[in-house]
Amino acid sequence: MKTGIIGLGLIGGSMAIDLKRRGFADEIIGVEADSVNAAAALKIGLADRIMSLEECVRASDLIILAVPVGAAVKMLPAVLDIFENEMTSAGVCSKTVIDVCSTKEQLSRTAHYHPMRSRYVATHPMAGTEYSGPWAAMPGLFDGRACIICNQEESAPASVRLVEKMYDCLNMRPIYMNASSHDVHTAYVSHISHITSFALALTVLDKEKNEKHIFDLASGGFSSTVRLAKSNADMWVPIFSQNRENLLKVIDTYIEKIGSFRKAIDEFDEKGIRTLIEDANRIKRIIR
Amino acid sequence: MKTGIIGLGLIGGSMAIDLKRRGFADEIIGVEADSVNAAAALKIGLADRIMSLEECVRASDLIILAVPVGAAVKMLPAVLDIFENEMTSAGVCSKTVIDVCSTKEQLSRTAHYHPMRSRYVATHPMAGTEYSGPWAAMPGLFDGRACIICNQEESAPASVRLVEKMYDCLNMRPIYMNASSHDVHTAYVSHISHITSFALALTVLDKEKNEKHIFDLASGGFSSTVRLAKSNADMWVPIFSQNRENLLKVIDTYIEKIGSFRKAIDEFDEKGIRTLIEDANRIKRIIR
Repeated sequence: MKTGIIGLGLIGGSMAIDLKRRGFADEIIGVEADSVNAAAALKIGLADRIMSLEECVRASDLIILAVPVGAAVKMLPAVLDIFENEMTSAGVCSKTVIDVCSTKEQLSRTAHYHPMRSRYVATHPMAGTEYSGPWAAMPGLFDGRACIICNQEESAPASVRLVEKMYDCLNMRPIYMNASSHDVHTAYVSHISHITSFALALTVLDKEKNEKHIFDLASGGFSSTVRLAKSNADMWVPIFSQNRENLLKVIDTYIEKIGSFRKAIDEFDEKGIRTLIEDANRIKRIIR
Repeated sequence: MKTGIIGLGLIGGSMAIDLKRRGFADEIIGVEADSVNAAAALKIGLADRIMSLEECVRASDLIILAVPVGAAVKMLPAVLDIFENEMTSAGVCSKTVIDVCSTKEQLSRTAHYHPMRSRYVATHPMAGTEYSGPWAAMPGLFDGRACIICNQEESAPASVRLVEKMYDCLNMRPIYMNASSHDVHTAYVSHISHITSFALALTVLDKEKNEKHIFDLASGGFSSTVRLAKSNADMWVPIFSQNRENLLKVIDTYIEKIGSFRKAIDEFDEKGIRTLIEDANRIKRIIR
């Protein structure tokens, strides 16, 4: 199958690697707006060819939008327009486009009334690292992780089956939910973690202006907690922006929890601190 | 050297393992208040013998207080009292006691006026995991990490040299600072990380009451950020309590940073969000 990947960064590049080596894709046709990244992707071997968006869509059976969600919202209707123009005189389109973005509601709304809506499948492979660009791509990134497929009743069954087959090739287990639930859930288990890490980095970097050696003392715990603060602004600005309403609710709950710690510490309330910690310890049954 | 370790949990137990197998300690004499942990420590082989605190101090050349800092503040004067009672008629004491706690000011104040103060060395090996108890002890835990030695001018040069030799055996590099600086630094690079993780766990666990499947979606980023929320209350309650003043300042800065994100997201200020993220990205030059 000819597979077009728009955006050959961490996610697109890692999909390219595994889809090719595991035989799902005969050819990877890449689209990459950044010329340095495009050259790197070719050199690393993430794509067989680099084309323009329109050429890629025309040449591919499956198109994967692996760009930040702000760009995806603009590109998705453009891809569906090309599908429409390319349709056979019998009114048949056999192409499929998916996105792999971290927010889903706005993309779903964007595509909702498009005549080719059924050829689009909204997906979110729950995998990644804090690095970005073609150099960050790696084999096996998706193995064993969950992939969310949203609003699949709005997609053609043939397109959904193709996408399920593709994620099966990436060793991902599918979870089905609507776009709106997706955005609530990811606000809690992904987006807020990034905000807490960014804020932690800013807090400690502020202090470092006066205390040059503060990081000599940073242990593994600090590194783990602040790791996501290395994440890329191009990716995260539109996510925070598009998931605004859910995120504001989560941030408010989070500030309330930090406030509970502050109050208990301020009031020498060791019993209160203990209760908060022991409640938080229940996370043990959830994560390894 | 006969080495007494008070508290055979993650830190004490891991020190026991490496000090014995690398030949620094001929014999490890353990003190463990919890009878289940004591039996486990003997079975695992962390200690050669288990004794009472007083017997252990009498039988050991070097005593390591590896208990939560609340208990250490009470035990340190008791150990120094035993040193005083045991002193030879010539007024000579050749024993040394260290602590390995995460806060230092209160311990330093506690020991400051004790006649045997010079036989105490305040240390903080910057290593650990989110697990606790003798089962969590492991070889190599300290290799390559930093160890802080505080107020060493108040300790006898022979005691400091012994402790440096011991940490050298654990492959740790020493950093010297006063207790007060130590507590400021650890508030920033360790204690606040724990509070942000606990608060994140509480935030998401609250939501889970209504959304049973929320954790199906948790990715590696979430696990990394929330990992420290598994940490033990017995250890962390007295740390937060003893480092109250520094922590309140750090928490306030942190709440301000979270508030900046909230404001930018609330006001659809994508440029503002980008600036915050890019500022936070400077953490890249600090951590791997």
